[in-house]
Amino acid sequence: MDKTKYFEDFEQGSVYSYTVPGLTTSQITEFARLYDPQLFHLDEEEAAKTHFGGLVASGFQTQLLCFRPFCEMALINSGAVGAPGIDSLKWLRPWYPGENLDVSVTLISKRLSSKRTDRGYLSFEMKASTNSEPVLSMNWVVIMMTLKATILD
Amino acid sequence: MDKTKYFEDFEQGSVYSYTVPGLTTSQITEFARLYDPQLFHLDEEEAAKTHFGGLVASGFQTQLLCFRPFCEMALINSGAVGAPGIDSLKWLRPWYPGENLDVSVTLISKRLSSKRTDRGYLSFEMKASTNSEPVLSMNWVVIMMTLKATILD
Repeated sequence: MDKTKYFEDFEQGSVYSYTVPGLTTSQITEFARLYDPQLFHLDEEEAAKTHFGGLVASGFQTQLLCFRPFCEMALINSGAVGAPGIDSLKWLRPWYPGENLDVSVTLISKRLSSKRTDRGYLSFEMKASTNSEPVLSMNWVVIMMTLKATILD
Repeated sequence: MDKTKYFEDFEQGSVYSYTVPGLTTSQITEFARLYDPQLFHLDEEEAAKTHFGGLVASGFQTQLLCFRPFCEMALINSGAVGAPGIDSLKWLRPWYPGENLDVSVTLISKRLSSKRTDRGYLSFEMKASTNSEPVLSMNWVVIMMTLKATILD
Protein backbone atom coordinates (compact mmCIF):
# COMPACT_ATOMS: atom_id res chain seq x y z
CA MET A 1 0.00 0.00 0.00
CA ASP A 2 1.36 3.41 -0.92
CA LYS A 3 1.62 5.90 1.87
CA THR A 4 1.23 9.54 0.94
CA LYS A 5 4.42 11.45 1.74
CA TYR A 6 4.45 14.96 3.14
CA PHE A 7 7.10 17.58 3.83
CA GLU A 8 8.09 15.84 7.08
CA ASP A 9 8.80 12.56 5.24
CA PHE A 10 11.47 13.98 2.90
CA GLU A 11 15.06 13.83 4.15
CA GLN A 12 17.76 16.25 3.09
CA GLY A 13 20.41 14.32 1.19
CA SER A 14 18.00 11.71 -0.22
CA VAL A 15 18.97 10.63 -3.73
CA TYR A 16 16.72 9.24 -6.46
CA SER A 17 18.69 7.35 -9.12
CA TYR A 18 17.51 5.86 -12.39
CA THR A 19 18.33 5.33 -16.05
CA VAL A 20 16.52 7.00 -18.93
CA PRO A 21 16.72 4.74 -22.02
CA GLY A 22 18.29 6.16 -25.17
CA LEU A 23 15.93 7.55 -27.81
CA THR A 24 15.39 6.38 -31.36
CA THR A 25 15.77 8.96 -34.13
CA SER A 26 12.00 8.86 -34.70
CA GLN A 27 11.29 9.59 -31.02
CA ILE A 28 13.54 12.64 -31.36
CA THR A 29 12.00 13.89 -34.61
CA GLU A 30 8.39 13.30 -33.46
CA PHE A 31 8.93 15.38 -30.34
CA ALA A 32 10.67 18.09 -32.37
CA ARG A 33 7.83 18.35 -34.88
CA LEU A 34 5.43 19.06 -32.01
CA TYR A 35 7.50 21.37 -29.85
CA ASP A 36 10.93 22.37 -31.14
CA PRO A 37 11.11 22.16 -34.96
CA GLN A 38 14.75 23.15 -35.47
CA LEU A 39 16.55 21.22 -38.24
CA PHE A 40 19.12 19.56 -35.98
CA HIS A 41 16.22 17.95 -34.04
CA LEU A 42 14.26 17.07 -37.20
CA ASP A 43 16.51 15.95 -40.01
CA GLU A 44 19.57 13.70 -39.82
CA GLU A 45 21.24 15.03 -42.97
CA GLU A 46 20.81 18.67 -42.02
CA ALA A 47 21.93 17.93 -38.46
CA ALA A 48 25.11 16.32 -39.78
CA LYS A 49 26.07 19.67 -41.35
CA THR A 50 25.88 21.55 -38.02
CA HIS A 51 28.40 21.54 -35.18
CA PHE A 52 26.33 18.76 -33.57
CA GLY A 53 27.49 16.37 -36.31
CA GLY A 54 24.19 14.51 -36.25
CA LEU A 55 20.65 14.44 -34.92
CA VAL A 56 20.27 15.54 -31.27
CA ALA A 57 17.25 15.57 -28.97
CA SER A 58 15.56 18.85 -28.12
CA GLY A 59 16.82 19.98 -24.74
CA PHE A 60 13.16 20.20 -23.68
CA GLN A 61 12.75 16.50 -24.46
CA THR A 62 15.83 15.72 -22.35
CA GLN A 63 14.38 17.77 -19.50
CA LEU A 64 10.97 16.06 -19.67
CA LEU A 65 12.25 12.50 -19.96
CA CYS A 66 14.67 13.02 -17.07
CA PHE A 67 11.84 14.51 -14.98
CA ARG A 68 9.20 11.82 -15.48
CA PRO A 69 10.77 8.95 -13.46
CA PHE A 70 11.51 11.38 -10.61
CA CYS A 71 7.89 12.50 -10.71
CA GLU A 72 6.76 8.90 -10.32
CA MET A 73 9.27 8.09 -7.56
CA ALA A 74 8.96 11.23 -5.46
CA LEU A 75 5.91 13.36 -6.34
CA ILE A 76 3.09 10.97 -7.06
CA ASN A 77 1.51 9.92 -3.76
CA SER A 78 2.89 13.00 -2.06
CA GLY A 79 1.62 16.36 -0.91
CA ALA A 80 3.39 18.10 -3.82
CA VAL A 81 1.38 21.02 -5.19
CA GLY A 82 3.57 22.27 -8.02
CA ALA A 83 6.69 24.37 -8.30
CA PRO A 84 7.31 28.12 -8.52
CA GLY A 85 9.77 27.63 -11.36
CA ILE A 86 13.20 26.38 -12.35
CA ASP A 87 16.20 28.19 -10.92
CA SER A 88 18.74 26.82 -13.36
CA LEU A 89 18.71 24.39 -16.27
CA LYS A 90 21.93 23.59 -18.12
CA TRP A 91 22.29 21.60 -21.30
CA LEU A 92 25.92 20.55 -20.99
CA ARG A 93 26.24 18.25 -23.99
CA PRO A 94 23.87 17.21 -26.82
CA TRP A 95 21.89 14.00 -26.29
CA TYR A 96 22.40 11.72 -29.31
CA PRO A 97 20.14 8.79 -30.29
CA GLY A 98 20.68 5.54 -28.40
CA GLU A 99 22.55 7.01 -25.44
CA ASN A 100 21.17 5.97 -22.05
CA LEU A 101 21.16 8.69 -19.42
CA ASP A 102 22.16 8.03 -15.81
CA VAL A 103 20.15 10.41 -13.68
CA SER A 104 20.37 11.26 -10.01
CA VAL A 105 18.20 13.75 -8.18
CA THR A 106 19.31 14.93 -4.73
CA LEU A 107 17.19 16.75 -2.16
CA ILE A 108 19.76 19.42 -1.37
CA SER A 109 17.73 21.39 1.19
CA LYS A 110 14.28 21.78 2.72
CA ARG A 111 12.62 24.56 4.66
CA LEU A 112 9.19 25.41 6.00
CA SER A 113 7.37 28.37 4.51
CA SER A 114 7.83 31.46 6.67
CA LYS A 115 4.37 32.75 5.74
CA ARG A 116 2.13 29.70 5.48
CA THR A 117 2.15 26.95 8.08
CA ASP A 118 0.71 24.28 5.80
CA ARG A 119 3.66 23.86 3.42
CA GLY A 120 7.39 23.81 2.87
CA TYR A 121 9.90 23.96 0.04
CA LEU A 122 12.11 21.11 -1.20
CA SER A 123 15.14 22.10 -3.30
CA PHE A 124 16.18 19.41 -5.76
CA GLU A 125 19.26 19.12 -7.97
CA MET A 126 19.14 16.82 -10.99
CA LYS A 127 22.25 15.58 -12.80
CA ALA A 128 22.02 13.52 -16.00
CA SER A 129 25.02 12.03 -17.77
CA THR A 130 25.94 9.47 -20.41
CA ASN A 131 29.19 7.50 -20.08
CA SER A 132 30.08 9.87 -17.21
CA GLU A 133 29.77 12.93 -19.47
CA PRO A 134 27.34 15.50 -18.03
CA VAL A 135 24.33 16.11 -20.30
CA LEU A 136 21.91 18.12 -18.14
CA SER A 137 21.67 19.70 -14.72
CA MET A 138 18.56 21.25 -13.24
CA ASN A 139 17.85 22.97 -9.92
CA TRP A 140 14.33 23.64 -8.82
CA VAL A 141 12.01 23.83 -5.84
CA VAL A 142 8.89 21.76 -5.16
CA ILE A 143 6.11 23.07 -2.92
CA MET A 144 5.15 20.29 -0.49
CA MET A 145 2.24 20.26 1.95
CA THR A 146 2.97 19.31 5.56
CA LEU A 147 1.47 16.30 7.29
CA LYS A 148 0.55 18.68 10.11
CA ALA A 149 -1.66 20.67 7.70
CA THR A 150 -3.41 17.48 6.59
CA ILE A 151 -4.13 16.37 10.16
CA LEU A 152 -5.57 19.78 11.02
CA ASP A 153 -7.90 19.68 8.00
CA MET B 1 11.66 33.76 -50.05
CA ASP B 2 13.02 33.20 -46.56
CA LYS B 3 16.42 34.67 -45.86
CA THR B 4 18.51 32.90 -43.27
CA LYS B 5 19.18 35.22 -40.34
CA TYR B 6 22.46 35.38 -38.48
CA PHE B 7 23.74 37.07 -35.34
CA GLU B 8 24.17 40.37 -37.22
CA ASP B 9 20.49 40.39 -38.28
CA PHE B 10 19.06 40.33 -34.74
CA GLU B 11 18.39 43.70 -33.12
CA GLN B 12 18.45 44.32 -29.41
CA GLY B 13 14.95 45.32 -28.31
CA SER B 14 13.16 43.29 -30.99
CA VAL B 15 9.88 41.83 -29.73
CA TYR B 16 8.06 38.71 -30.98
CA SER B 17 4.38 38.72 -29.98
CA TYR B 18 1.76 36.01 -30.41
CA THR B 19 -1.15 34.24 -28.79
CA VAL B 20 -1.10 30.64 -27.62
CA PRO B 21 -4.64 29.20 -27.79
CA GLY B 22 -6.18 27.83 -24.61
CA LEU B 23 -5.96 24.08 -24.05
CA THR B 24 -8.75 21.56 -23.75
CA THR B 25 -8.80 19.35 -20.67
CA SER B 26 -7.84 16.36 -22.81
CA GLN B 27 -4.80 18.19 -24.23
CA ILE B 28 -3.72 18.83 -20.64
CA THR B 29 -4.27 15.25 -19.43
CA GLU B 30 -2.66 13.65 -22.52
CA PHE B 31 0.52 15.66 -22.02
CA ALA B 32 0.51 14.87 -18.29
CA ARG B 33 0.21 11.14 -18.88
CA LEU B 34 3.34 11.24 -21.02
CA TYR B 35 5.52 13.62 -19.04
CA ASP B 36 4.16 14.90 -15.72
CA PRO B 37 1.60 12.49 -14.22
CA GLN B 38 0.62 14.46 -11.12
CA LEU B 39 -3.06 14.26 -10.20
CA PHE B 40 -3.78 17.99 -10.67
CA HIS B 41 -2.65 17.64 -14.32
CA LEU B 42 -4.48 14.33 -14.85
CA ASP B 43 -7.81 14.26 -13.09
CA GLU B 44 -10.40 17.04 -12.83
CA GLU B 45 -12.03 15.75 -9.64
CA GLU B 46 -8.76 15.26 -7.81
CA ALA B 47 -7.49 18.63 -9.04
CA ALA B 48 -10.60 20.32 -7.64
CA LYS B 49 -9.59 19.16 -4.14
CA THR B 50 -6.16 20.85 -4.34
CA HIS B 51 -5.34 24.53 -3.93
CA PHE B 52 -5.52 24.82 -7.73
CA GLY B 53 -9.29 24.33 -7.54
CA GLY B 54 -9.34 22.49 -10.87
CA LEU B 55 -7.27 20.95 -13.63
CA VAL B 56 -4.13 22.89 -14.57
CA ALA B 57 -1.58 22.36 -17.33
CA SER B 58 1.85 20.99 -16.48
CA GLY B 59 4.27 23.90 -16.30
CA PHE B 60 6.42 22.04 -18.82
CA GLN B 61 3.52 22.06 -21.28
CA THR B 62 3.13 25.82 -20.76
CA GLN B 63 6.85 26.28 -21.40
CA LEU B 64 6.80 24.18 -24.59
CA LEU B 65 3.67 25.70 -26.11
CA CYS B 66 4.93 29.21 -25.43
CA PHE B 67 8.28 28.31 -26.99
CA ARG B 68 7.09 26.76 -30.23
CA PRO B 69 5.76 29.88 -32.02
CA PHE B 70 8.92 31.79 -31.06
CA CYS B 71 10.99 28.92 -32.48
CA GLU B 72 9.11 29.24 -35.78
CA MET B 73 9.32 33.05 -35.89
CA ALA B 74 12.92 33.53 -34.79
CA LEU B 75 14.98 30.33 -34.87
CA ILE B 76 13.92 28.42 -37.96
CA ASN B 77 15.80 29.81 -40.96
CA SER B 78 18.48 31.21 -38.70
CA GLY B 79 21.99 30.31 -37.66
CA ALA B 80 20.77 29.17 -34.23
CA VAL B 81 22.68 26.17 -32.92
CA GLY B 82 21.04 25.50 -29.60
CA ALA B 83 21.17 26.99 -26.14
CA PRO B 84 23.42 26.41 -23.13
CA GLY B 85 20.42 26.32 -20.80
CA ILE B 86 17.68 28.32 -19.14
CA ASP B 87 18.72 30.96 -16.65
CA SER B 88 15.32 31.39 -15.03
CA LEU B 89 11.86 29.96 -15.53
CA LYS B 90 8.96 31.14 -13.36
CA TRP B 91 5.48 29.68 -13.22
CA LEU B 92 3.61 32.66 -11.81
CA ARG B 93 0.06 31.38 -11.97
CA PRO B 94 -1.54 28.06 -13.00
CA TRP B 95 -2.72 27.77 -16.61
CA TYR B 96 -6.35 26.62 -16.63
CA PRO B 97 -8.17 25.04 -19.63
CA GLY B 98 -9.46 27.45 -22.25
CA GLU B 99 -7.31 30.42 -21.28
CA ASN B 100 -5.44 31.99 -24.21
CA LEU B 101 -1.93 33.15 -23.43
CA ASP B 102 -0.55 36.45 -24.71
CA VAL B 103 3.17 35.95 -25.19
CA SER B 104 5.95 38.38 -25.94
CA VAL B 105 9.61 37.55 -26.31
CA THR B 106 12.14 40.39 -26.21
CA LEU B 107 15.76 40.25 -27.30
CA ILE B 108 17.16 41.95 -24.24
CA SER B 109 20.86 41.82 -25.18
CA LYS B 110 23.34 40.36 -27.64
CA ARG B 111 27.09 39.89 -27.56
CA LEU B 112 29.76 38.20 -29.63
CA SER B 113 31.59 35.24 -28.15
CA SER B 114 34.89 36.31 -26.63
CA LYS B 115 36.50 32.98 -27.50
CA ARG B 116 35.03 31.93 -30.85
CA THR B 117 34.73 34.34 -33.73
CA ASP B 118 31.99 32.40 -35.54
CA ARG B 119 29.13 32.95 -33.05
CA GLY B 120 27.39 35.19 -30.58
CA TYR B 121 24.83 34.98 -27.79
CA LEU B 122 21.29 36.34 -27.86
CA SER B 123 19.55 36.81 -24.49
CA PHE B 124 15.78 36.48 -24.68
CA GLU B 125 13.09 37.19 -22.11
CA MET B 126 9.67 35.58 -22.53
CA LYS B 127 6.55 36.81 -20.74
CA ALA B 128 3.22 34.97 -20.98
CA SER B 129 -0.02 36.20 -19.44
CA THR B 130 -3.75 35.63 -19.55
CA ASN B 131 -6.11 38.58 -19.02
CA SER B 132 -3.04 40.61 -18.01
CA GLU B 133 -2.19 38.13 -15.22
CA PRO B 134 1.39 36.84 -15.56
CA VAL B 135 1.53 33.06 -16.08
CA LEU B 136 5.15 32.38 -17.08
CA SER B 137 8.44 34.15 -17.51
CA MET B 138 11.59 32.64 -18.98
CA ASN B 139 15.08 34.00 -19.57
CA TRP B 140 17.52 32.13 -21.73
CA VAL B 141 20.36 32.50 -24.22
CA VAL B 142 20.47 31.26 -27.82
CA ILE B 143 23.78 30.53 -29.54
CA MET B 144 23.70 32.15 -32.99
CA MET B 145 26.25 31.79 -35.77
CA THR B 146 27.53 34.97 -37.41
CA LEU B 147 27.05 35.79 -41.08
CA LYS B 148 30.77 36.50 -41.17
CA ALA B 149 31.49 32.87 -40.19
CA THR B 150 29.25 31.64 -42.99
CA ILE B 151 30.92 33.80 -45.61
CA LEU B 152 34.37 32.59 -44.52
CA ASP B 153 33.29 28.93 -44.79
